[in-house]
Amino acid sequence: MTRRVRNRQLAAKIVDAEEAAGLIGTGDNVGMSGFTGAGYPKEVPGALAKRVAAARAEGEPMKVGLWTGASTAPELDGALAEVEGIDLRLPYQSDPVTREKINSGRMDYTDIHLSHVAQRVWQGVFGELDVAVVEVSGITEDGRLIPSSSVGNNKTWLERADRVILEVNSWQSEHLEGMHDIYYGTALPPRRKPVPITHPADRIGVPYLECPADKVIAVVETESPDRNTVFTPPDETSGRIAGHVLDFLDLEVRSGRLPRDLLPLQSGVGNVANAVLAGLQAGPFDGLTAYTEVIQDGMLHLIESGKLRMASATAFSLSPAAVDRFNRDAAAYRDKIVLRPQEISNHPEVVRRLGCLAMNGIVEADIYGNINSTHLMGSRIQNGIGGSGDFARNAYVSIFVTPSVAKGGAVSSIVPMVSHVDHTEHDVDVIVTEQGLADLRGLSPRRRAELIIERCAHPDFRPALRDYFDRASESSFGRHTPHLLGEALSWHQRYLDEGTMRPA
Amino acid sequence: MTRRVRNRQLAAKIVDAEEAAGLIGTGDNVGMSGFTGAGYPKEVPGALAKRVAAARAEGEPMKVGLWTGASTAPELDGALAEVEGIDLRLPYQSDPVTREKINSGRMDYTDIHLSHVAQRVWQGVFGELDVAVVEVSGITEDGRLIPSSSVGNNKTWLERADRVILEVNSWQSEHLEGMHDIYYGTALPPRRKPVPITHPADRIGVPYLECPADKVIAVVETESPDRNTVFTPPDETSGRIAGHVLDFLDLEVRSGRLPRDLLPLQSGVGNVANAVLAGLQAGPFDGLTAYTEVIQDGMLHLIESGKLRMASATAFSLSPAAVDRFNRDAAAYRDKIVLRPQEISNHPEVVRRLGCLAMNGIVEADIYGNINSTHLMGSRIQNGIGGSGDFARNAYVSIFVTPSVAKGGAVSSIVPMVSHVDHTEHDVDVIVTEQGLADLRGLSPRRRAELIIERCAHPDFRPALRDYFDRASESSFGRHTPHLLGEALSWHQRYLDEGTMRPA
Repeated sequence: MTRRVRNRQLAAKIVDAEEAAGLIGTGDNVGMSGFTGAGYPKEVPGALAKRVAAARAEGEPMKVGLWTGASTAPELDGALAEVEGIDLRLPYQSDPVTREKINSGRMDYTDIHLSHVAQRVWQGVFGELDVAVVEVSGITEDGRLIPSSSVGNNKTWLERADRVILEVNSWQSEHLEGMHDIYYGTALPPRRKPVPITHPADRIGVPYLECPADKVIAVVETESPDRNTVFTPPDETSGRIAGHVLDFLDLEVRSGRLPRDLLPLQSGVGNVANAVLAGLQAGPFDGLTAYTEVIQDGMLHLIESGKLRMASATAFSLSPAAVDRFNRDAAAYRDKIVLRPQEISNHPEVVRRLGCLAMNGIVEADIYGNINSTHLMGSRIQNGIGGSGDFARNAYVSIFVTPSVAKGGAVSSIVPMVSHVDHTEHDVDVIVTEQGLADLRGLSPRRRAELIIERCAHPDFRPALRDYFDRASESSFGRHTPHLLGEALSWHQRYLDEGTMRPA
Repeated sequence: MTRRVRNRQLAAKIVDAEEAAGLIGTGDNVGMSGFTGAGYPKEVPGALAKRVAAARAEGEPMKVGLWTGASTAPELDGALAEVEGIDLRLPYQSDPVTREKINSGRMDYTDIHLSHVAQRVWQGVFGELDVAVVEVSGITEDGRLIPSSSVGNNKTWLERADRVILEVNSWQSEHLEGMHDIYYGTALPPRRKPVPITHPADRIGVPYLECPADKVIAVVETESPDRNTVFTPPDETSGRIAGHVLDFLDLEVRSGRLPRDLLPLQSGVGNVANAVLAGLQAGPFDGLTAYTEVIQDGMLHLIESGKLRMASATAFSLSPAAVDRFNRDAAAYRDKIVLRPQEISNHPEVVRRLGCLAMNGIVEADIYGNINSTHLMGSRIQNGIGGSGDFARNAYVSIFVTPSVAKGGAVSSIVPMVSHVDHTEHDVDVIVTEQGLADLRGLSPRRRAELIIERCAHPDFRPALRDYFDRASESSFGRHTPHLLGEALSWHQRYLDEGTMRPA
């Protein structure tokens, strides 16, 4: 037994990563832990990638189906994609090598609402799950698993897999123990019951993952950091977007449409999200809560300042500096953070009940309020839809944020027609750029267009958008959502042809 | 007092429709009852339309905001649209005159997920509700309202409106009393609780609508039928679609992915839906249930034959013949039908928990599985999204059905890129045409395209779709979802230019 592997039966199964990876076969579907670069297995994936490369050298191509919580890291997605060892990848990724393989047509990928994955796996539509490779932060004397820095789909992987490989990562804080809430009350219909969460802080499960010891075929000890990203302070554009969001929230409170302590926040990751959180730091709202996917630096700051009473999520996504602070003072965060399975952190039922305020980033929006979150120029996937649909559809207010231009001003984030739709006009309440904010609630498509062009578009693109809208309003087949189909996607085509959406 | 108005205080408020309509002012937001042509007010809207026409003749244009449950009838939508008396219309309509006004740019309309309407009104984002005009089938001695043939948003209208006009329609069956289940447990966040339905038959409320008598400003007695539509027996195309759906359900049961009595059915209205229901009549499944929006002829037949144990919905949509049968033998249906507010019949929480099998019609699908349910050629709205999003997103299996061609073969229902998106690739499990069925679950976009073209497209359009997909796969910017943006909408443009999508 070791300090982190305190169960005798499982300690006897400790092997190195190569041996563990040897227990995975070609054609296996493998469920791995990991969500936004937190809590993914650190060594077995690399060892598996070496096996794949060796097998190919011997003329015996090897591939596995790879299912995760969400994005992982170069050591996992990158390593396996590099050797083309992945058959079907789901439900979300953000790795550059993986992205390249997908977009060159060499890897199959399907992005899925993150709350849907577990039920889909139970339903059996992706086939059987053969192996789970799950990072934990420790194993108790009686064999319960102390989860790591993310929960993701680990409960489901451990339940559904025939064989289980555990990575026990001693880099993860020991203070994580007790912070998780693993709900074992889910079922397939017709046996489903209400998920009994009525406040983000509610604990409805147990702090440990369960797994029968005889399913565990290997335990690998690791000591490696998560894929932490450096926190960059908000730039001016992000700061202006955040300012508009805060003004909006303030108006909603003053109009009586939101309580003074708001409603549970959901926030995507990235610079704009962190800027909004930084804005809340300086803002008038107290006693906040979060019911979200990921706890990033900005949320940790809000907890530290006392602005945020508590945060429910499925994963951390912290900078190295924030991880240090968290580890130094973990006890202080203990009763302020709950990490849940993503099926619960993103559950439509709970998101709707709590009335989350959803804030998510996008690739582009069109003048009628449709949102593209995933595809560059309609064909090239960036990451995936992730949990944005779980939150946007069910939120009390669904806010989408983006700088008004990209690629140094060559690309407008507001276009006549989005080249791919992830969130339809029916799920989009508010669009915000550094230019301003458009509150689309209760507006017909034509009124939305006027507002989005006026408030959100970059001044450089505003005249061309107005021109499109005016001409479409004159001669469109239908004038509910006026469009000129021959031109609707021409801005994207111009970018592909000339490297810019700007008119010649 | 009268036979249907058994409360003394309300009987004293009986007036004619003209007098009642005179209590509605210009600029008022008016919430009217009505869902799929059932339970809408029959006389006040027409009287209001006359006022609007008279006001315009005097040079004083009059408009109201018009909110309903869903579609109504010519006497309501048609009459008010004809005189251009509607400012903003929501959340759904299917009236030819209304549609024409919307698509000529003369009326503002916003279609909304039907489960979202009530919370949006409580949230106050459409402004105040000034007047409710609600049809009921009777008023009890103590002033409770016996709902009519639809519930829709009536609970919310009665609660939120400053003034209430009741139409008491003695054409409606007296046997409706006791059939409804009005849930008064909803709230705005942060005070929401789980909706305690775990089976379609669960009753969680009361059979009456409540309304303080002093808010009622007028009671109008009517005796008029709902907008019943003739039931047409399934044609060959619908029958073949139904056959594919039944084969799929059968396979799911045999594969252990569905129980033998299936899961609660949700079915849109129309010929194809009725054909599927007729197929179930002859099929191997027993002990069925439905958790759906509308009870149409096909469902009544299934109840009569004993195949369907019970159906939960928010409205009837029956043919005159079916209405007669229902009225003759209403007692027999009493314990087999529950009518609920649409907030509950379509509630994402309940739909997901029950695991509905959703079957909805469409305008068109693209080769990657995105669905357009509303817009012809991307700009001309037909009806609206209705409840299809509530069900499709949260269903256990989400099925979309359509004939493979329309307009006598000039239009393909399978296109390279849909011209409008209502249901994204993430919410579409199965697409069915008379040609065949494509089970898209767990497939990458490229695999979906192969399947949809092969199984669902009409043979006349299959070669052109394959050609598009092949060329896009060769030269698309990204090859996750291959597209040629200059061509993606060209099929629609060709239809607008030449009246056909067929290549020259």
